[in-house]
Amino acid sequence: MKDAREILEKVKNGDMTVEEAEKYFKSAPFVDLGYAKLDYHRKVRTGFPEVVFCEGKSDEHIVSIFVKLYEEDGRVLGTRATQHQYELIKASLPKAEYDIVSRIMKIEQEPQSDKIGDIAVCCGGTADIPVAEEAATVAEYFGNYVRKIYDIGISGLHRLLSHVEDLQSANCIIAVAGMEGALPSVLGGLVSVPVIAVPTSVGYGASFQGVSALLTMINSCANGISVVNIDNGFGAGYIASQINRLAERK
Amino acid sequence: MKDAREILEKVKNGDMTVEEAEKYFKSAPFVDLGYAKLDYHRKVRTGFPEVVFCEGKSDEHIVSIFVKLYEEDGRVLGTRATQHQYELIKASLPKAEYDIVSRIMKIEQEPQSDKIGDIAVCCGGTADIPVAEEAATVAEYFGNYVRKIYDIGISGLHRLLSHVEDLQSANCIIAVAGMEGALPSVLGGLVSVPVIAVPTSVGYGASFQGVSALLTMINSCANGISVVNIDNGFGAGYIASQINRLAERK
Amino acid sequence: MKDAREILEKVKNGDMTVEEAEKYFKSAPFVDLGYAKLDYHRKVRTGFPEVVFCEGKSDEHIVSIFVKLYEEDGRVLGTRATQHQYELIKASLPKAEYDIVSRIMKIEQEPQSDKIGDIAVCCGGTADIPVAEEAATVAEYFGNYVRKIYDIGISGLHRLLSHVEDLQSANCIIAVAGMEGALPSVLGGLVSVPVIAVPTSVGYGASFQGVSALLTMINSCANGISVVNIDNGFGAGYIASQINRLAERK
Amino acid sequence: MKDAREILEKVKNGDMTVEEAEKYFKSAPFVDLGYAKLDYHRKVRTGFPEVVFCEGKSDEHIVSIFVKLYEEDGRVLGTRATQHQYELIKASLPKAEYDIVSRIMKIEQEPQSDKIGDIAVCCGGTADIPVAEEAATVAEYFGNYVRKIYDIGISGLHRLLSHVEDLQSANCIIAVAGMEGALPSVLGGLVSVPVIAVPTSVGYGASFQGVSALLTMINSCANGISVVNIDNGFGAGYIASQINRLAERK
Amino acid sequence: MKDAREILEKVKNGDMTVEEAEKYFKSAPFVDLGYAKLDYHRKVRTGFPEVVFCEGKSDEHIVSIFVKLYEEDGRVLGTRATQHQYELIKASLPKAEYDIVSRIMKIEQEPQSDKIGDIAVCCGGTADIPVAEEAATVAEYFGNYVRKIYDIGISGLHRLLSHVEDLQSANCIIAVAGMEGALPSVLGGLVSVPVIAVPTSVGYGASFQGVSALLTMINSCANGISVVNIDNGFGAGYIASQINRLAERK
Amino acid sequence: MKDAREILEKVKNGDMTVEEAEKYFKSAPFVDLGYAKLDYHRKVRTGFPEVVFCEGKSDEHIVSIFVKLYEEDGRVLGTRATQHQYELIKASLPKAEYDIVSRIMKIEQEPQSDKIGDIAVCCGGTADIPVAEEAATVAEYFGNYVRKIYDIGISGLHRLLSHVEDLQSANCIIAVAGMEGALPSVLGGLVSVPVIAVPTSVGYGASFQGVSALLTMINSCANGISVVNIDNGFGAGYIASQINRLAERK
Amino acid sequence: MKDAREILEKVKNGDMTVEEAEKYFKSAPFVDLGYAKLDYHRKVRTGFPEVVFCEGKSDEHIVSIFVKLYEEDGRVLGTRATQHQYELIKASLPKAEYDIVSRIMKIEQEPQSDKIGDIAVCCGGTADIPVAEEAATVAEYFGNYVRKIYDIGISGLHRLLSHVEDLQSANCIIAVAGMEGALPSVLGGLVSVPVIAVPTSVGYGASFQGVSALLTMINSCANGISVVNIDNGFGAGYIASQINRLAERK
Amino acid sequence: MKDAREILEKVKNGDMTVEEAEKYFKSAPFVDLGYAKLDYHRKVRTGFPEVVFCEGKSDEHIVSIFVKLYEEDGRVLGTRATQHQYELIKASLPKAEYDIVSRIMKIEQEPQSDKIGDIAVCCGGTADIPVAEEAATVAEYFGNYVRKIYDIGISGLHRLLSHVEDLQSANCIIAVAGMEGALPSVLGGLVSVPVIAVPTSVGYGASFQGVSALLTMINSCANGISVVNIDNGFGAGYIASQINRLAERK
Repeated sequence: MKDAREILEKVKNGDMTVEEAEKYFKSAPFVDLGYAKLDYHRKVRTGFPEVVFCEGKSDEHIVSIFVKLYEEDGRVLGTRATQHQYELIKASLPKAEYDIVSRIMKIEQEPQSDKIGDIAVCCGGTADIPVAEEAATVAEYFGNYVRKIYDIGISGLHRLLSHVEDLQSANCIIAVAGMEGALPSVLGGLVSVPVIAVPTSVGYGASFQGVSALLTMINSCANGISVVNIDNGFGAGYIASQINRLAERK
Repeated sequence: MKDAREILEKVKNGDMTVEEAEKYFKSAPFVDLGYAKLDYHRKVRTGFPEVVFCEGKSDEHIVSIFVKLYEEDGRVLGTRATQHQYELIKASLPKAEYDIVSRIMKIEQEPQSDKIGDIAVCCGGTADIPVAEEAATVAEYFGNYVRKIYDIGISGLHRLLSHVEDLQSANCIIAVAGMEGALPSVLGGLVSVPVIAVPTSVGYGASFQGVSALLTMINSCANGISVVNIDNGFGAGYIASQINRLAERK
Repeated sequence: MKDAREILEKVKNGDMTVEEAEKYFKSAPFVDLGYAKLDYHRKVRTGFPEVVFCEGKSDEHIVSIFVKLYEEDGRVLGTRATQHQYELIKASLPKAEYDIVSRIMKIEQEPQSDKIGDIAVCCGGTADIPVAEEAATVAEYFGNYVRKIYDIGISGLHRLLSHVEDLQSANCIIAVAGMEGALPSVLGGLVSVPVIAVPTSVGYGASFQGVSALLTMINSCANGISVVNIDNGFGAGYIASQINRLAERK
Repeated sequence: MKDAREILEKVKNGDMTVEEAEKYFKSAPFVDLGYAKLDYHRKVRTGFPEVVFCEGKSDEHIVSIFVKLYEEDGRVLGTRATQHQYELIKASLPKAEYDIVSRIMKIEQEPQSDKIGDIAVCCGGTADIPVAEEAATVAEYFGNYVRKIYDIGISGLHRLLSHVEDLQSANCIIAVAGMEGALPSVLGGLVSVPVIAVPTSVGYGASFQGVSALLTMINSCANGISVVNIDNGFGAGYIASQINRLAERK
Repeated sequence: MKDAREILEKVKNGDMTVEEAEKYFKSAPFVDLGYAKLDYHRKVRTGFPEVVFCEGKSDEHIVSIFVKLYEEDGRVLGTRATQHQYELIKASLPKAEYDIVSRIMKIEQEPQSDKIGDIAVCCGGTADIPVAEEAATVAEYFGNYVRKIYDIGISGLHRLLSHVEDLQSANCIIAVAGMEGALPSVLGGLVSVPVIAVPTSVGYGASFQGVSALLTMINSCANGISVVNIDNGFGAGYIASQINRLAERK
Repeated sequence: MKDAREILEKVKNGDMTVEEAEKYFKSAPFVDLGYAKLDYHRKVRTGFPEVVFCEGKSDEHIVSIFVKLYEEDGRVLGTRATQHQYELIKASLPKAEYDIVSRIMKIEQEPQSDKIGDIAVCCGGTADIPVAEEAATVAEYFGNYVRKIYDIGISGLHRLLSHVEDLQSANCIIAVAGMEGALPSVLGGLVSVPVIAVPTSVGYGASFQGVSALLTMINSCANGISVVNIDNGFGAGYIASQINRLAERK
Repeated sequence: MKDAREILEKVKNGDMTVEEAEKYFKSAPFVDLGYAKLDYHRKVRTGFPEVVFCEGKSDEHIVSIFVKLYEEDGRVLGTRATQHQYELIKASLPKAEYDIVSRIMKIEQEPQSDKIGDIAVCCGGTADIPVAEEAATVAEYFGNYVRKIYDIGISGLHRLLSHVEDLQSANCIIAVAGMEGALPSVLGGLVSVPVIAVPTSVGYGASFQGVSALLTMINSCANGISVVNIDNGFGAGYIASQINRLAERK
Repeated sequence: MKDAREILEKVKNGDMTVEEAEKYFKSAPFVDLGYAKLDYHRKVRTGFPEVVFCEGKSDEHIVSIFVKLYEEDGRVLGTRATQHQYELIKASLPKAEYDIVSRIMKIEQEPQSDKIGDIAVCCGGTADIPVAEEAATVAEYFGNYVRKIYDIGISGLHRLLSHVEDLQSANCIIAVAGMEGALPSVLGGLVSVPVIAVPTSVGYGASFQGVSALLTMINSCANGISVVNIDNGFGAGYIASQINRLAERK
């Protein structure tokens, strides 16, 4: 709390009036004293550039946000973008790229820094790939090395088991699955690192747009499983990045 | 359909008027003509002795039902029986046996006929054993050979995989599981016969007394899975017996 | 398990070192040794050609999958296909047929082998026919004899009862129903073989897109009823085929 | 509306000022003028004595209510009474009777008037009898002739069909069922009078204490079915009494 | 039961052998003997012409059904019809009329018979009118006199209370309400005849497309309330017609 | 209560018979005597002009309602209006204004009276602004001073905390939030006035269109929180206006 | 912000060292600087003494909390207390009183200050009285004048309507109701002040322990209704106290 | 993979026939070859001793499991243990300790190794402490340094904010909360490490035994939040231990 001491010293020395000091403490306790610092710390320590949730944003907003972030950082990434939004952005930022599967729209810096660590992104069926790709792309954007292991649904165990060594060497696993959503439980029994479970809305009937898969994951009998919202690939990529960074720090 | 013929003969012979015959056919088509026969056929063809659901039955009722069935068949089996009910029955029927785990109370005929076919009864964890035992005991009582493969939960795949050959040689598999209930999906990918999935109320929190497991099983991505009610070991044992009998008939 | 034996023979004969063999067994226990065999076994024993779930597949994928499967087997079947997908396939595979009711798109081999056994596919109302047709067509494609008994909803019992003999001669019954979904319970009381219950999303208001029918079926007071997901005609056809095959094997 | 007329007469005769009368009409329009009459009308026209819901009432309250109602009417009936409550009442009102099955406690007038009309009270299984008895006893108490047709669950159609004529001659049918609750749908297809459907909490697992049965009944594909709350035998008895009375009025 | 009598006469007269007659009764007990009668009886006694649920029916089906029913009865009514379906029918049956609010399409006989009895159809808000109109039109089509009392939601009691006398003179009340669905409870306290409660899908947010209104009605603290499915105006009109007919029979 | 007095005077003066007066009081106690007054009182005391819920209203209705209300009051406001409805109204009432964000269409009186008191309308994220704007605009239309504090979601506390003094000086707070909906709980801990919580349908997956946010708010551990329906900005604006008016009355 | 100024003055004057001041600001930024003020402000302005939620608290905790609060304030109130907890407290604090109906345990100061304003606490049935009493007692404890209007359920409108004037003169209404929970909607249409709706767990079957009543209230078609958690009498009493205080401030 | 090599050496040397070796690889690929190794690897790498879920285990089982684990490891820990189970264990293992709050029963090794890293375990209210203690004790048992920060519910932000620095220095945060469960969202906005959210069953009414809190956490608007089952303190402790270990490895 160096700043507070500085101010107090100034008060003591007569370099600042009591009224000025009072105003400082009164008007800006959160922003100027505590919270502006907090905010600054958070940005510095987080190390993750801001990510834009594009769904539902107006044309005007999406363009201004992308342009502003690009100007600040030289890079920008948005999730759940539409083809239409991409075309808008493309007009202003010609370097923008769009991936139809993951619905991610981004501009990356070149040259990109080396990816660190090892995150395995797995999914059960081909229909889960869009969510898996969102998770993987976000994690890569945050500077993590990502290993994609797709289509290893538990109804064909040999596919999954043939990747056991890859799975066991990761710092963290993202397991994406719809329908009955049992993939994380099986993975959890095979590895010793955290498994971030992502239910998807893939399925029909009693899958309830992913609720069944979510319940499966929350009730997992395996250890080391925690769960994010349905189709929340971004959230899983974020958490995995946090864990991978912790694992790779010196 | 002897009665119908008798009546028609009487009409032909003038021993019964058309009006009397019409009244007969009109007033009692279901009982006398069609349905009594139907009922008889059903009993003969089903070949499964009646099973008593003991839960909630009064002391008086449970005793009279057991005594009556025992007198008819020389054997009787009840599910979800209490220790108290067993003691009541024991007083009237000293040969009665009770199993505290499956809560089954029964008297079997001696010597028992040879068991036919091959039904595998599996469960995920030790807490699922009571339901698995209910299924297994019912299937054995109905004359089927039963193979019990317990504690093969999917979070420890090696336990499950070490039984693959046993599983693959069965005519039908009963898969009992609580918590996330993913055992049937994994089994369904390993075998080519029907898997009867039984969710159990084992779990806590968002398991919702078995609802989560039920949803998992209904949404299974594996083929060949059908589902019965939560904790319905009897129902699974019944269906497996039907399938095993079909498979073993000459 | 020819490959394993070959390797062991080579080790015995000195054509392969112990280290090479160990590496083989170690690095690929699931695919090469265990699971490839398992997979092979499964395919041989299942006897059911692969079926494509067309819903949501991209134009490119659906065409390549159909062409590949047709080239392998000389036949192919897809469920939940759209008219658009059919037109795409038709361009590449002119023999393809499409049924607008069941939404099944297929090419069958000619001449087709004789159908075996007896599966009865029933439904409650005319609105349930698409799901019933999916089940029936899948079962026929898998080589089973199918008897269709439609529009026998329980609110007009005489329609149902007039088919009792047909129902009682089947090896397995598929009962498809929406709204209150009580058809399987009534059928279960009339026959002695397994009834595969398929809830449909037919209904409105508190039918909750089939959830009410599903709950009715799961809670059935009749014996021999097991349940698949809402609108899962394919799943029911698959299980019925497994049971019918078991019943007809020599 | 004697009081209003009295006041108006007084105004006319000068025995009451306009201001006094205005105050009367203004301050008490509902109780004294309109609603007391309404209430009186309602009681006279309803013709149904008040029924006490005993569950949860304190010892003191239950006794005072029963004594007061008995003193007014010479008869009284309470639903969901406990053995304990019966013993309390018995001490004050020795004529009180208690039925352990329906949990109804009552004193009836002697001689009872002839029962009118014809209400059929049906139930699916023996476990539903308590609710059916509550409905039947209430309807009898209200002066209706009641025909009890129990244990006609739809999984054994012949039992139900053997009573078709009795069912078809009733003015109204109460159909009580737990588990999948499909009895009302089957009955609705066989008769032309209203069917009051009562789901019961009988069942386990996915019966959800009667919710599944309620949904089945609400979604019925048969015409003429309306539904009351789970285990609400009293409510069904009340409505059936209303309908039977309408049907029997001259 | 003319057919049965004819056959019996033939047997008596020697025009048919006993074997032939037996075969007839055996092979078709439900359709020809029992259920045809049942069906015939039902039609005669029900007195309600068939009503068509148009929603989801194909163009071809809807036309053929309407034409067939019109040819038989000289009148026909369909619920949940679309403008498109109306135009189709109009081409074949120029007398057809369509009401955009109730979505009912019909041809009525002229001159229509006098309406009997008194059914009050009430609704809470103007948004509930389509469902109320469906109920009212169906009841009128079935020959009942219908009194419409709309827009008497409970948040403005004076509107409702100003109709108390009309409500109290009806044989049966249909109460249609969305949002919180409390109208039937208030009505139930004011009248002594059955109230058929119809929840509607009107509302937003936690109204859950009518589920909240349905629960309100099922839990009503007033006597005499029974409930049909969400938006099921037809069902309510049918039951009210049954009750009104019972009340008006001589 | 002039009419009642007039009638009483006539009775006193012999200009009306007692019977005529009795009939008057009997047939119309609610409308003419009691409830018309009540209604009048309510309108006078409420002081809030009527607000139109535009969603789902037909073109014809919306125009006639707006014109009628405008003619009466010289102002009118509708919620959940579409661009199309605005264009319709604009043709008849050129002064009409439309706000695309809040979907409010209105004509206000000029000059507007001074706003009273202090209502703070807060929301968590930018996606909640439409609902917040609906609440704010309604409250302003009712004559209240409104302070908007948007985008103060709890995942960035410093934004929220920098407005603490503004929040603490309000008479009432409206807290609008989607996703997890925790904003009202945090606000409730910082202020001493009522917090009206409005869940929004903002979110995806397990947000269940606002149900999760609603549950969060209903379960708030903070004091002073009450909740309205999902997306019900109007309702919150109405209640806040009631409270603010109470707080500002002299 | 007098305290901060005092400290700063002391620093300036040398009456406090910088280190002491820093320690003050650092160790207690929230309590002493920002939040203590906040907290202090809140306590002063809230004017509501702390209330103890007794349910589930250990014997030891409940005694120490009560003694501590009594020592501080000379009064203390706890909700959801058991008879056992009361006996424990009584031993330490002989002035403690306990009300078995509301389950409130308290010691009040004597003489109590005059109650201000006017809060009407209403409930639908006698079974709702415990929750209503909790609300009323809390509001009285907070110094508000409370008017209790119990047993005015909507199925007997005359009871409710006879209290219209009392209801219309209150500053705020608490409406407590179980089962279908429609009381607040009816009240909301009769008054112009806020109605705090409290669903209760009274009911059975599909009342779902108060969920149905909660949904009814959330979906209310009347204006001015906001809702608290099921059985949360305390919460309603708190909010009503906030509103009443705002209404009565000078 | 010593065993595989031994067998291969024997084959090479002629000490085992090819057939014998083939049988070995064929019959036990998972246990002996692949999965025994896998299992061994998993145990070695996991480094976490087994933990016993005591709830529902029989007296006999709990004792034998505890004794066996203690004999193997010299330490043992069980969650959700009862006082009764503790007394049983105490008789066999006198060193056993039991904590009534967390319901954890354990024997730890002495001297315990130094705790590594930094896990912060937070909870919202005192009622959440049992679950928080379960998480903390498990994490400590696994060798992690744990910092407990309890009773920092979001309705009193100053309590939470005064711990910001402690929270920001942890490697991982466990956030335990019942009722509305918003604590993890607030924490997630203040720190840059993963937050493991644990909903508890604390609450009443619409908290649905923790479901509301679970939904709040799944829908969190803050980044870095993942969720485990309701009351699953053990699961959170396990995952936090995995993350802390990754963060502290060299």
